Amino acid sequence: MTKKVGIIGMGNVGCAVAHAMMVAGTADEYVFLDHTEEKVVANQLDFEDAMANLTHHASIRVNDWSALADADVLISTLGNIKLSQTSGDRLAELQFTSQMVAQVADQIKQSGFKGTLIVVSNPLDVIATLFQSLTGLPANQVIGTGTLLDTARLQRLLGQALQVDPRSIQGYVLGEHGNSQVVAWSTVKALGQPIQGLLEERELDQTKLEQAVIAGGMQVAQGKGFTSYGISAATVRLATAILTNEHAQLVVSHRRPGQMVYSSYPAVVGRQGILAEAHLDLLPGEEQQLAQSVALIQERFEEIKAVITA
Amino acid sequence: MTKKVGIIGMGNVGCAVAHAMMVAGTADEYVFLDHTEEKVVANQLDFEDAMANLTHHASIRVNDWSALADADVLISTLGNIKLSQTSGDRLAELQFTSQMVAQVADQIKQSGFKGTLIVVSNPLDVIATLFQSLTGLPANQVIGTGTLLDTARLQRLLGQALQVDPRSIQGYVLGEHGNSQVVAWSTVKALGQPIQGLLEERELDQTKLEQAVIAGGMQVAQGKGFTSYGISAATVRLATAILTNEHAQLVVSHRRPGQMVYSSYPAVVGRQGILAEAHLDLLPGEEQQLAQSVALIQERFEEIKAVITA
Amino acid sequence: MTKKVGIIGMGNVGCAVAHAMMVAGTADEYVFLDHTEEKVVANQLDFEDAMANLTHHASIRVNDWSALADADVLISTLGNIKLSQTSGDRLAELQFTSQMVAQVADQIKQSGFKGTLIVVSNPLDVIATLFQSLTGLPANQVIGTGTLLDTARLQRLLGQALQVDPRSIQGYVLGEHGNSQVVAWSTVKALGQPIQGLLEERELDQTKLEQAVIAGGMQVAQGKGFTSYGISAATVRLATAILTNEHAQLVVSHRRPGQMVYSSYPAVVGRQGILAEAHLDLLPGEEQQLAQSVALIQERFEEIKAVITA
Amino acid sequence: MTKKVGIIGMGNVGCAVAHAMMVAGTADEYVFLDHTEEKVVANQLDFEDAMANLTHHASIRVNDWSALADADVLISTLGNIKLSQTSGDRLAELQFTSQMVAQVADQIKQSGFKGTLIVVSNPLDVIATLFQSLTGLPANQVIGTGTLLDTARLQRLLGQALQVDPRSIQGYVLGEHGNSQVVAWSTVKALGQPIQGLLEERELDQTKLEQAVIAGGMQVAQGKGFTSYGISAATVRLATAILTNEHAQLVVSHRRPGQMVYSSYPAVVGRQGILAEAHLDLLPGEEQQLAQSVALIQERFEEIKAVITA
Repeated sequence: MTKKVGIIGMGNVGCAVAHAMMVAGTADEYVFLDHTEEKVVANQLDFEDAMANLTHHASIRVNDWSALADADVLISTLGNIKLSQTSGDRLAELQFTSQMVAQVADQIKQSGFKGTLIVVSNPLDVIATLFQSLTGLPANQVIGTGTLLDTARLQRLLGQALQVDPRSIQGYVLGEHGNSQVVAWSTVKALGQPIQGLLEERELDQTKLEQAVIAGGMQVAQGKGFTSYGISAATVRLATAILTNEHAQLVVSHRRPGQMVYSSYPAVVGRQGILAEAHLDLLPGEEQQLAQSVALIQERFEEIKAVITA
Repeated sequence: MTKKVGIIGMGNVGCAVAHAMMVAGTADEYVFLDHTEEKVVANQLDFEDAMANLTHHASIRVNDWSALADADVLISTLGNIKLSQTSGDRLAELQFTSQMVAQVADQIKQSGFKGTLIVVSNPLDVIATLFQSLTGLPANQVIGTGTLLDTARLQRLLGQALQVDPRSIQGYVLGEHGNSQVVAWSTVKALGQPIQGLLEERELDQTKLEQAVIAGGMQVAQGKGFTSYGISAATVRLATAILTNEHAQLVVSHRRPGQMVYSSYPAVVGRQGILAEAHLDLLPGEEQQLAQSVALIQERFEEIKAVITA
Repeated sequence: MTKKVGIIGMGNVGCAVAHAMMVAGTADEYVFLDHTEEKVVANQLDFEDAMANLTHHASIRVNDWSALADADVLISTLGNIKLSQTSGDRLAELQFTSQMVAQVADQIKQSGFKGTLIVVSNPLDVIATLFQSLTGLPANQVIGTGTLLDTARLQRLLGQALQVDPRSIQGYVLGEHGNSQVVAWSTVKALGQPIQGLLEERELDQTKLEQAVIAGGMQVAQGKGFTSYGISAATVRLATAILTNEHAQLVVSHRRPGQMVYSSYPAVVGRQGILAEAHLDLLPGEEQQLAQSVALIQERFEEIKAVITA
Repeated sequence: MTKKVGIIGMGNVGCAVAHAMMVAGTADEYVFLDHTEEKVVANQLDFEDAMANLTHHASIRVNDWSALADADVLISTLGNIKLSQTSGDRLAELQFTSQMVAQVADQIKQSGFKGTLIVVSNPLDVIATLFQSLTGLPANQVIGTGTLLDTARLQRLLGQALQVDPRSIQGYVLGEHGNSQVVAWSTVKALGQPIQGLLEERELDQTKLEQAVIAGGMQVAQGKGFTSYGISAATVRLATAILTNEHAQLVVSHRRPGQMVYSSYPAVVGRQGILAEAHLDLLPGEEQQLAQSVALIQERFEEIKAVITA
């Protein structure tokens, strides 16, 4: 009956997710969880001040982990900025990150949460792998937003170049939500055509486009100090697919069959999280790049695991 | 055909307004106007990264004043925080404010904007009066969000106390969007009843409620550094009434017949802005309080006018 | 998690309700129940042909009563037209109606339905009373759309006369969803004013308006053979209040404290159906009219009860 | 500013289109045009009775052709059922149809309509061709819903077979909105794969699927006497792309470069109607089938043209 969404970390991303959901009427009940009590309470109040002027009803609880017991979706945006910043001491940073995730995972477990966990925190694929491992939730019920955002950036760039709505651009960015990501050009189509011909016709540089996709987040972050709307839209898109049992094919970070770590690849998403795998016919070069990207995630995950068990 | 909205000032409020509108599909074209070029371009990019995952299409232009010529609604959120901060030198502050408004009003005039201007900047009623005077737009086409937000806060407080959706609480906060505002208790009803009896029955303190309404903004601002979602929802509510020619009765800041300055009072809002006046049967004490509140706005407006013409 | 709505009777009203809900994304799962298997399957197919072009996902089951076990809302539109038609033999008609309701109530009971039943079938208040009695559902979980529609008609008429959006007209039609309904003029306000003054000012005839409200349904039915969009919007409005636990104040048919039969009066509606009662300060004449209207419903209910137990 | 939609023919399809649009808030103003004055006025009233319970404001005019002068989109559903029924005298039927279209086209011309005309009337491609020719509107501003509906049916069938949301099924039905339509199997993909492998894997019969797509409309029509929701959703989808200047790639009936008659093929749709052509890499067999389908439309159009000029 009731759709309930928990959000861990009410910073810029968490707030943008909550805002979009309340405007769209995505859920009926929200649980905001954040260490900075004063700020999260202020946001609750600010959202409640909006309600008389919104079309959908909603209720909000703050910092009540027990309220997650019957939540449908839980979104972790924790440490978004700090975790992705480079620090002088890589090991110290990993230690910090893993401790934070471990602590939150413990709180999730204790809450009795049985829904689907959406991971937005960076480094996305490593953190998602860690979350699944530490919460003990079934792998299909832990999903990272992954390259859903990078794919949206590719769609934005091609859409603008071709004067087509980004939703009419097909194709996927795969692998790591990070620098090793793979634009699977063989899957990209626009105006009914494989993109290759169009790129040549319009004199678009494939390498520059790839770099622009990767650089998209940094570009936004440099201009405004963080990213929020792009990632929030990807998160709400994913959450909606789960909440409405949509069976939508989305490129998201999940543990693919035979792999130990999370990476992005299209899958069918519904109430139980990942419902089925898509299978792309990639070019050998793309497969190789993808394998390398996954290997990189694997390396980083082992690094972090070593830190934890140390 | 196309619904076009301009937003001056893409800070926390401007961005929240744009975000809510894009999620709801309120308009088709947006014009973002902001001095900090780098930040506004970053926000454009961030919003464009969202579009592949939104349900409504939209396009965004940045810092192109000429694009306002055929805009339907223009929203000024300029200087929101700085203007409302107390400074040691009140005269210097007023001078700064009035110069900013004068400059923007000039840009609006030059753009050929013919739509309705929504003023969100504080001190709301003074700035709205100033904007109308300096842009030369017809008075009905300049509207301030005014106590639409304070009324939403009253609805929030009473709704929570009575366990009723805030939209099911009737009544108005009138006058200044500021400390002299008037909760018109004689207009407040809930559960079919004048509120008075309910307040006694539930042992709710009217004075405390009034103070809580006024303090609502400060409470949020202290907790998170600014307010955004409440004011954004009120702004989108008002903009929607204009964009869809809704003929909705809303309590907003406008120049009431026979008055020289802006103040909040319910009116009918549609495509041409203020279409008709409502007439409340207030208690004599409420009328007096309201007159005092309007007098205060008048005083402040004259102070600022003196600064301008000096 | 999942929002599930059952609809009994997929005629014009049931289909319009389903259509509005699918467009708005009101629920995720629908159960269509109708005797005319061929027609209801055709409607299922027709709705499924819409889904690739809708924004919200939905799934539909047909004629599976067991699927109601975990439904949140069940809407009975059964026999809408036939039941409201006058027949030569009033007793025979009542017998037919009561048998239909009894049979459906039995199927509802056997399904294990535990949600809230919305009754749209006419004669509304009698049928709602009968449904509550025969299903054994708690009284708060059986609600009739009642005069929510008649109130919308009043809002339409006054809104058009005053050039104000109907949602900005306050006030209620109470009692029977039928000819004995009571326009509670003392509750009606527009433009901030009690309606009385405005009616005089605009030379509007109160009696003619009352008659137009009552005649509204007949006028539509005569022109197109049935009514569907007005009643469907009222039904979806009520269902939404339940599905989102809105705590909205709505004028709907329910069993008021101390009364044996259903009649319309404002109440607070949420997940558990009727959550609280509103209390209007009606004029003595209005109270009397309302009592007469309820007495009429009572009479008719006893008539039908006599038929059942006979 | 204002979005205005005219609908010619307020039968089952026209009404379903209007209903969906009012629920979704697609437009602000509607013009209903229909010969049966009594029925269209009843529908206006029925929709107006809905408005107090809808979230979006709208206004309706009836049978005022002059109101089309500034309409953005005009939808012709005229004669939907009768025109598609087989009659004993094919020539007589064509004569009747062509006279109806000629008369309506004349009224459109006289109204000064300058927007985009959406043709829903059957035989779709012939009527669309006729409308463009007779109204003198630029070819890009006359669009038929065409195989957007047949494609939705294909998506429905494959989506159900593969347990995937229909919107996650890619591919197109091309050519005539009729029995000569071409399922372009080489464009169909699901779960990241060309459909061929999946059909074999799941033991799905391609020919049966094709027949089911074609038979979809008949199946619905036999069960309920007409089709409405599938075609209405396709129509609203197309209208939304125009009204919001979406630049969406949609498979719709239009006059492709080098062709004299209308047929369905993917194109980019926005404010000016057809903005750009997509180019599919079809198999030779598919191209041939498509050419035959277009030839058939051509034949029928010439037949009707002969009737007109006779």
